[in-house]
Amino acid sequence: MTAGRADAAGPGTPVAVSLAHGRLAGLDEIADVGRDAARGGYSRHLWQGPELELRGWFTERAARLCLDVETDRNGNLWAWWGLPGADAVVTGSHLDSVPGGGGYDGPLGVVSALDAVARLQASGFTPARPFAVLVFAEEEGSRFGVACLGSRLLSGAIDADTARALTDRNGVTLAEASARAGLDPAHLGADPASIERIGLFIELHVEQGRGLIDLGRPVAVASSILAHGRWRLSFSGQGNHAGATSMAARRDPMIAAARAIVAVQDAALAQPGSRATVGRLEVVPGGTNVIASTVHAWLDARAETDTETRTLVTEITARAQEEAATNGCSATVTEESWAPQVRFDPVLRERFALALGDVPRLPSGAGHDAGVLARRVPSAMLFVRNPTGISHAPEEFAERDDCAAGVEALEQLLRDLL
Amino acid sequence: MTAGRADAAGPGTPVAVSLAHGRLAGLDEIADVGRDAARGGYSRHLWQGPELELRGWFTERAARLCLDVETDRNGNLWAWWGLPGADAVVTGSHLDSVPGGGGYDGPLGVVSALDAVARLQASGFTPARPFAVLVFAEEEGSRFGVACLGSRLLSGAIDADTARALTDRNGVTLAEASARAGLDPAHLGADPASIERIGLFIELHVEQGRGLIDLGRPVAVASSILAHGRWRLSFSGQGNHAGATSMAARRDPMIAAARAIVAVQDAALAQPGSRATVGRLEVVPGGTNVIASTVHAWLDARAETDTETRTLVTEITARAQEEAATNGCSATVTEESWAPQVRFDPVLRERFALALGDVPRLPSGAGHDAGVLARRVPSAMLFVRNPTGISHAPEEFAERDDCAAGVEALEQLLRDLL
Repeated sequence: MTAGRADAAGPGTPVAVSLAHGRLAGLDEIADVGRDAARGGYSRHLWQGPELELRGWFTERAARLCLDVETDRNGNLWAWWGLPGADAVVTGSHLDSVPGGGGYDGPLGVVSALDAVARLQASGFTPARPFAVLVFAEEEGSRFGVACLGSRLLSGAIDADTARALTDRNGVTLAEASARAGLDPAHLGADPASIERIGLFIELHVEQGRGLIDLGRPVAVASSILAHGRWRLSFSGQGNHAGATSMAARRDPMIAAARAIVAVQDAALAQPGSRATVGRLEVVPGGTNVIASTVHAWLDARAETDTETRTLVTEITARAQEEAATNGCSATVTEESWAPQVRFDPVLRERFALALGDVPRLPSGAGHDAGVLARRVPSAMLFVRNPTGISHAPEEFAERDDCAAGVEALEQLLRDLL
Repeated sequence: MTAGRADAAGPGTPVAVSLAHGRLAGLDEIADVGRDAARGGYSRHLWQGPELELRGWFTERAARLCLDVETDRNGNLWAWWGLPGADAVVTGSHLDSVPGGGGYDGPLGVVSALDAVARLQASGFTPARPFAVLVFAEEEGSRFGVACLGSRLLSGAIDADTARALTDRNGVTLAEASARAGLDPAHLGADPASIERIGLFIELHVEQGRGLIDLGRPVAVASSILAHGRWRLSFSGQGNHAGATSMAARRDPMIAAARAIVAVQDAALAQPGSRATVGRLEVVPGGTNVIASTVHAWLDARAETDTETRTLVTEITARAQEEAATNGCSATVTEESWAPQVRFDPVLRERFALALGDVPRLPSGAGHDAGVLARRVPSAMLFVRNPTGISHAPEEFAERDDCAAGVEALEQLLRDLL
């Protein structure tokens, strides 16, 4: 069944979540949720207005497909088709975004999953195996700083006490925020009963690089994910008056941070294939006429292997401390998250790639919940072409036909698996 | 009369605002207003909670001295001893702070003025000339970006339409904020009737450098103020995914900004006596796993003369645009405020310096409302030693005895002038 045919179905049927207006109808329905006028794009952060609205939208959407929605102890949403059970096939992604992000990273996987279910139902298909659509919490780590937080908690990849103590930019802890969201903070953490139900996980996601553009194909399966992590580089000096303090008398952490940011680029360029970025920075106190006392710069570093990534961060740490010392400041480097290299199950990858017509196998520079789950259960990913090659920005996009190809691919795999 | 003697006065008399607990009692009274737990020090910004509280405190304090408080059309507070009139002697400073600033920059001048009045009253003195204590609005420019905004508006040094359109970090305009504060935005701007009443202005201020430390003296008069201004350097590139975007494919404005900040330091070091600082920076969108699309860096630049300052900024602008181009970005530089070099009235300066026992004459690297007023009316400044040499930071300080020496000096000058 193609998207075009789905459009022909009558109003009020589950097929109504399918293609419309040039993209998946589900994306249209949430197109106004969490728009960020200042940054452009979307800002949808864990348990804040727009993200709560998206949870409501998902629950209502799932209910229209007669799926039963449950929230697990870590705030992930599961929508079951039939009874929950062992060896389930699970597919999904996330609904949160980076600040000012695009509309496809995350939601495309959720909407495609609902769409695939609608199409299976419309064709009279009934699963012979437990099946759920899963929405992970805080995949981007935009509120609490740790990417894939929901899947890490679910799978026990992050210690519960560590997680409870994470704070957002206003100093609210994850424990406090989860309580306000109606969860019991004491129950955050590893959830063996939930993860052990998963027999196989598939995440469909918009591609975040140019692999499919270069190959001229709409859909791929994932082969691997770069090792990656986040580190906070904090430079401390002496706050002082910008006009009354001679250049020679300064211990200005902004200079140390700026030189370290230049060193971040140099270090990544010197190690081919690696990537290092400072995209968030906080200046304390942050007055125009005030020499800073502290500058926090967040480093995102990635490379093919764990060792390469660690080597890169060691080099950057040394350079940061050198620049701090040269400028009369001190520097501390704190690891905020770490995700080892992921190689997706090769048997599953080849089975899916061949079933879909020998589609490309592509590595991912971006992290995903499927990468976290891959350490515990057989996992796979589908990528849908992004004609701009840009992600985590308003320019992120997927063509109608490519979205349709993604839904069809997911539907085909589910039909075979269920 | 010394501070010690003032302490001996009975409770309930105006003298109660004098020294207590190791510093001016007035400073103790406001010691808890606007404390900034995150940054340290104080954050007291125009027409926001703590600053409004300080306005109330000042009004109540002035009333206890039987001064009549009026708010002028630009939000400056005038406390008149007797009837307002022409050729008035006016003294004062400001109550707002930089983010995370010290407790002396501004409030020391206001508290010392009230204290000097209390001591004059306690001695039975009555002024033969109109006299007012003046509190300027938004001296630090921490909310609307333009330093000395209250004195600039009063004296017509900033165009009213330009001022009304200034915005704070939340996009609130000065016009809107002034209306919420009970002013008529249409009446913001040059206030000839008010400024023409001033026959002479004196501002007492904590020193913000190390001049008095090096000379071993408690009090000085000001000789000059560096030319200075503020510029916003905005670097624009292409927001993208920090993991999926190769180093070679980036147009990262953070790299351009970091290299420009290094160039800011280089340019200031290459021009002896000049000072250039980036103490405020905003990254858009500001996600750890997001290559920025735009970085705004605010430049504070100062030098002895107007020409030297302009030359410095021209050099920095060229370097910023060069770094932007090298990194595939663009840069724009916007002047947000400008204050030419000030040379205080030499006759007044010498008269005051000699009257106070040949105290030192010191230049100021910091801007002051007295510098703005100096273009319109005879103006002078007194500096009180700061034993840390640090300002715009929690370490800013003045010893009890030095504060007393400042109040005595101000009282002596007022007694002679009034």
